[in-house]
Amino acid sequence: MRRIAESTVRRLSLYLSFLEEIEARGVPTTSSEDLARLGGTTSAQVRKDLSFFGSFGKRGLGYSVPELSARLRRILGLGRQWRVCIIGAGKIGAALARYAGFTERGFIVSAVYDSDPSKIGSRWGNVKVRDEASLERDIEAGDYQIAVLAVPADSAQNLADRVVRAGIKGILNFAPVQLTVPNDVALRAVNMAMELEALTFAITNKVD
Amino acid sequence: MRRIAESTVRRLSLYLSFLEEIEARGVPTTSSEDLARLGGTTSAQVRKDLSFFGSFGKRGLGYSVPELSARLRRILGLGRQWRVCIIGAGKIGAALARYAGFTERGFIVSAVYDSDPSKIGSRWGNVKVRDEASLERDIEAGDYQIAVLAVPADSAQNLADRVVRAGIKGILNFAPVQLTVPNDVALRAVNMAMELEALTFAITNKVD
Repeated sequence: MRRIAESTVRRLSLYLSFLEEIEARGVPTTSSEDLARLGGTTSAQVRKDLSFFGSFGKRGLGYSVPELSARLRRILGLGRQWRVCIIGAGKIGAALARYAGFTERGFIVSAVYDSDPSKIGSRWGNVKVRDEASLERDIEAGDYQIAVLAVPADSAQNLADRVVRAGIKGILNFAPVQLTVPNDVALRAVNMAMELEALTFAITNKVD
Repeated sequence: MRRIAESTVRRLSLYLSFLEEIEARGVPTTSSEDLARLGGTTSAQVRKDLSFFGSFGKRGLGYSVPELSARLRRILGLGRQWRVCIIGAGKIGAALARYAGFTERGFIVSAVYDSDPSKIGSRWGNVKVRDEASLERDIEAGDYQIAVLAVPADSAQNLADRVVRAGIKGILNFAPVQLTVPNDVALRAVNMAMELEALTFAITNKVD
């Protein structure tokens, strides 16, 4: 498969969330114009995005909503359940463990890990705080495919190394540090203060 | 000023967080090699990133930590205070209002807005939930420069239009929808489910 730009994957996610919304309302078909409006792009871009993955839709008839959403789910790897662990039972870990958006999209967050004995064993809703020492054993047992790192910057690389050695295939990093992982491990980073700094940079320097 | 890539701005933020950390420990100088290690890049890239903004450092002597961190702060627009409001007192809004990382970087979150009468008037730590109806008046009074949107997808564009008309210059969007804003308004988006989908896409399609 050709390398797909991150911005394309992002738009595919947006198209899918729109399709799922109109599918729930029973809308049978949609157009590249409708998808473009939601994705903040043009209908030509929508057709180009989808063309990477084969042929979709019929000229003049638009796209079948159930068909296109099923295809996009498969493309995005959502045709299966993904089990996720959150590492770090601090403020960000707590917010993420309670974030309903993960479950809505088929991600099962089944545990939070921490090394603080005062936190281990406590329950947050459906999720239990487990001992970080058992992380490798649980991953090797196949409990998770994705790890979310919500730990301080100075312990993030060490924890990333540990989960990668244990077999994790994807990491979502909330620690404010750039991680290094092998090429076959997918890595994404979210840094909220950094997003605000990108804003203040743009406001201050008036780039556009 | 030349257009600066988002990835460059992201690395500048990483360099700055590293510089602030070693500045607090009293380290006087650093090298492009040290900065590169933290930013997950090469020392040549560090020198290139910094060269956009004039000359820094002396060959063989490295960079003065206080000088470089002051310059980076000015470049990133952090030489001043930024007041931030959060719109939407749901789960994400609550997590953001409590997120210490904002304050640490000089962002003052002073209010959360909601339209739900049962939430208006309640206090979350130092932050009060205000009536969404007073949003325009407060922005026009100069209370905030940045708005964080933590509302459902279907009300996000309407709220973005309202805050832009009232004079907001930067929006950080957590709603799962692509927003349209005028060119002179800075916009960043964070969508956590979408970050996970980018991971599952990469894992499923083995792109690298």
